Amino acid sequence: MPGVITSQSEDFPQWYQDVLAKAELADNGPVRGTMVVRPYGYAIWERIQGEIDRRIKQAGAENVYLPLFIPESYLRKEAEHVEGFSPELAVVTHAGGKELEEPVVVRPTSETLFGEVMAKWVQSYRDLPLLLNQWANVVRWELRPRVFLRTTEFLWQEGHTAHATREDAAEYALRILHDVYRDFFVNVLAVPVFVGRKTRKERFAGAVNTLACEGMMRDGKALQLATSHELGQTFARAFDITYTSENGTVEHCWTTSWGSSTRIVGGLIMAHGDDGGLRLPPRVAPLQAVVVLVRDDPDAAGVARRLAADLGGAGVRVKLDADVASSYGRRVTDWELKGVPVRIEVGPRELAEGKVTLVRRDTGERSGVALDGVAAAVTEALGRIQTDMLAQAEGFVREHTADVTGVSDAVDAAQDGFARIPWAALGEGGEAELAGHGVSVRCLQRPDGSVPASEDEPGVVAIVAKAY
Amino acid sequence: MPGVITSQSEDFPQWYQDVLAKAELADNGPVRGTMVVRPYGYAIWERIQGEIDRRIKQAGAENVYLPLFIPESYLRKEAEHVEGFSPELAVVTHAGGKELEEPVVVRPTSETLFGEVMAKWVQSYRDLPLLLNQWANVVRWELRPRVFLRTTEFLWQEGHTAHATREDAAEYALRILHDVYRDFFVNVLAVPVFVGRKTRKERFAGAVNTLACEGMMRDGKALQLATSHELGQTFARAFDITYTSENGTVEHCWTTSWGSSTRIVGGLIMAHGDDGGLRLPPRVAPLQAVVVLVRDDPDAAGVARRLAADLGGAGVRVKLDADVASSYGRRVTDWELKGVPVRIEVGPRELAEGKVTLVRRDTGERSGVALDGVAAAVTEALGRIQTDMLAQAEGFVREHTADVTGVSDAVDAAQDGFARIPWAALGEGGEAELAGHGVSVRCLQRPDGSVPASEDEPGVVAIVAKAY
Repeated sequence: MPGVITSQSEDFPQWYQDVLAKAELADNGPVRGTMVVRPYGYAIWERIQGEIDRRIKQAGAENVYLPLFIPESYLRKEAEHVEGFSPELAVVTHAGGKELEEPVVVRPTSETLFGEVMAKWVQSYRDLPLLLNQWANVVRWELRPRVFLRTTEFLWQEGHTAHATREDAAEYALRILHDVYRDFFVNVLAVPVFVGRKTRKERFAGAVNTLACEGMMRDGKALQLATSHELGQTFARAFDITYTSENGTVEHCWTTSWGSSTRIVGGLIMAHGDDGGLRLPPRVAPLQAVVVLVRDDPDAAGVARRLAADLGGAGVRVKLDADVASSYGRRVTDWELKGVPVRIEVGPRELAEGKVTLVRRDTGERSGVALDGVAAAVTEALGRIQTDMLAQAEGFVREHTADVTGVSDAVDAAQDGFARIPWAALGEGGEAELAGHGVSVRCLQRPDGSVPASEDEPGVVAIVAKAY
Repeated sequence: MPGVITSQSEDFPQWYQDVLAKAELADNGPVRGTMVVRPYGYAIWERIQGEIDRRIKQAGAENVYLPLFIPESYLRKEAEHVEGFSPELAVVTHAGGKELEEPVVVRPTSETLFGEVMAKWVQSYRDLPLLLNQWANVVRWELRPRVFLRTTEFLWQEGHTAHATREDAAEYALRILHDVYRDFFVNVLAVPVFVGRKTRKERFAGAVNTLACEGMMRDGKALQLATSHELGQTFARAFDITYTSENGTVEHCWTTSWGSSTRIVGGLIMAHGDDGGLRLPPRVAPLQAVVVLVRDDPDAAGVARRLAADLGGAGVRVKLDADVASSYGRRVTDWELKGVPVRIEVGPRELAEGKVTLVRRDTGERSGVALDGVAAAVTEALGRIQTDMLAQAEGFVREHTADVTGVSDAVDAAQDGFARIPWAALGEGGEAELAGHGVSVRCLQRPDGSVPASEDEPGVVAIVAKAY
């Protein structure tokens, strides 16, 4: 489809902008750095949110809603925290028609409010663990915004939990990383992720350990897709989150926090998209199949309608495109831009043979399907596409991940992919050197890809890349 | 349960505050007028949101997300609109560490942004109707806040639609009123509502017709639960929302808007609650049944666990309460405060007879149920409770609605209920007189309770009440 969108190889950032516009995902909002998420983009986010929310609930956490506005004084409670955010804050100074006595900040996170409510709600060891989560909008003023990836306002979830012991907190932070985030990225989004711990330099301010899921985009750059932090007792001390233990002593809790955001939509676009536009894995696709009536023909129209109804009845998220006033080619291009996994083309010629054509968006593969086998063929194709897209993405990651032993080789590899380098060979000195080339350590892993208990474990490797 | 919460007859507003606190629904936030929605309160909101969202999607509307921040200049586009909101606005003057060149307003609604995107997205008659909705937080500075009922920040949905004709817009506004709102209130929340049109005085600024659902609370006051507006072409002219018709002329669209909010949670509390606390209709209850282990006993504990598992398997939202370290009476009081529709009590004495006790929260009725019939009995009880709660609420509304013919009788009736008075007898003069007594016209209806096409229809009656 030459000319519809810029090709990835020509200009990847422009390709991304073109996909946002042509697949009708999102626009810029009128205030710098904000975004207008259009129906198709929001439908994708709703599916992402639903899948993550279900996993969060399975992990035992409960949703709450804390206020958008935070008294400015709260952000001075934890010094380290303020320094991380201060230039990013949006401040309300006027409300109710006059100047406020104390300005209020639009939440950059709800961390301080979680600190306050957790201190109130936790009294005894019987209240632990306290497992909370919130879905909300947050604001961090951005100077170089990019829709979905880095915006002044974004939608996210932030989990905050309090535990009686360090071990319990550590185990929960890891459980969220694996059972919520990794499971969602791999099994729903079909995006293979590197899970691991952050280096001291990349760690979240105030955390004793930051765990992350890092995905590889089609330009070989890394996108941090979710993080899970062990906060030790730092946060509990700052907010006085204490509990009375079984034997009557007052103890500080051990806390965790973890988050993921609308940035994931950007990751989905860049991990799977191609020169035809979006490619959506069936489990996250708002529309899994579209039945396209090729041209105006009453018999074909009737069949197309019936097939769409049958597919809907079989639990497929399906739409009928009988908009024959628009050109067939234009409609096909649009459905490909939108990344709908399966297209069923219904035209009079094939119908005469009792068949329709099934087209896979991920591979472009076309096959004839007998009319009475369409629902089964589509269901089967959706399953295969989900599996194949993950396998293809895993292959891409493998091909673009180099094992290296020195900094300069790592920098070379990071031009179009990731490098894996022994952490003992790299160290904080090597990490600083990489930073001079715009390359960072995305995470530290064990050689088998699992999460090390400490960066000092023998054999730990660093995954390094350029990052969004 | 004397002493647990204030009784409704003693002090209804204090009863409401007590329920919020004791059922762990919500607290005040640190910034005046904001609220902290606790897990149990938020779980109720999630069910409300899910049910309304499903109905909105069935009505063909799609969700979008527009920015929290609106340039201050946008709120000057439609003069009438600004005057309605100006003192309620929260204004961000500083961000990114410096003063902004143009202040930005925290959305009091997204109306102006909807105007902008609809003008962009509608080009031709083929783009119509455009049916959009948004779930988001909005801010209106409140001087007399009350949790859920009137808060500085609240969560809501606002729908905005554009149509080619006045008839289509009018029909859609009515469809939303009936198929989304009324259906939800009656069939899920078990709250009977008066549907009707607002008088000129009560109409939304800029609307040519405002439709509303009004519920009666247990203190006889009215709560406006949702509104649906026909905006004529006013809004389309202000934002230049035009389309090219089939014969090539450029026309202004006809638009609607409609909304409902976290205020519904307040309505649910006040329409069904009693002196024991919340009473939740099964369809909206986050927990439909709780299996309470009466006292520590290994056999009973095993049975309670198995019953909870069976009920979960049967699709009941159920929880096991085996917290025998707390007193049985205290636990029962807490589950009643939380309004869980069905309680199954598992104690050794009844178990010896192969039975457990089923207690209905709505009536307090207790019945013995054979162990192998518990899942069936609970499912059946949930169905009956849903139906009975609606019937009970309908009876309460009937008993507290008086047919009157004069203003002074209407004022009398409005001390503990609603009055129905011929609109011809009341008129705008009578409406003004009622206002002097804190009584307002909640809506105008046909004698059969349906929505009149105009306030001039013969036989139109006014429903008048004190309102939240």
